Amino acid sequence: MRQPTPIGLAHLRVKYSDGFYMGPGRADLMQGIAETGSIAQAGKRMDMSYKRAWSLVQALNEGWGAPLVETSRGGVAQGGAHLTADGQFVLQSYRTMQAATSKAIAPEFLSIQQRLIDISKEK
Amino acid sequence: MRQPTPIGLAHLRVKYSDGFYMGPGRADLMQGIAETGSIAQAGKRMDMSYKRAWSLVQALNEGWGAPLVETSRGGVAQGGAHLTADGQFVLQSYRTMQAATSKAIAPEFLSIQQRLIDISKEK
Repeated sequence: MRQPTPIGLAHLRVKYSDGFYMGPGRADLMQGIAETGSIAQAGKRMDMSYKRAWSLVQALNEGWGAPLVETSRGGVAQGGAHLTADGQFVLQSYRTMQAATSKAIAPEFLSIQQRLIDISKEK
Repeated sequence: MRQPTPIGLAHLRVKYSDGFYMGPGRADLMQGIAETGSIAQAGKRMDMSYKRAWSLVQALNEGWGAPLVETSRGGVAQGGAHLTADGQFVLQSYRTMQAATSKAIAPEFLSIQQRLIDISKEK
């Protein structure tokens, strides 16, 4: 089950080209694939149907122009999936951007929090 | 008519409390109200029905806990609307966060752009 979004940075979407962007859902799915070795398992962690997870992987690979996620057909790892070097780069880069954003917005975020405290005191 | 999203920062949503967040649509609507003095006109600029614009204003005011947008009933400015001091603060603070985010993600964004150029050369 998904938890409610914590306060702070809630959604960061960055468009890299007309055909490709990264956002939190794509990043979480890629991270799930890296951690579970399976598109189905990664989707399941996000309450996403296999069909939806699979079409998201296709959108990622087609949009980027080279594979970000590769699947293994047959062999011991039948049905398995993993991130390519590009996939690891795109995911890591997005995580770095999220962290940089949280840090960059902190001063404004804190002054908003202070104002919300003041408003609640005025009531 | 809306233009396609330019590349770069495409969507920044920041959650300030369980009942309130700011994102690009809310900011654009508030800016439209500040610039046109009208909820209807501000919504129209965004291809948004008056009903939707109005319910977004209500969500903004209720979520924040104090008015961000005030409407003038009757008088010369009949039907007009404007941002309160809090509304100006929330909007300006969000614009500052957007600018800080664009700057903070620039190094990662550029290395992604470089990789996209390399991929297109490999083809």
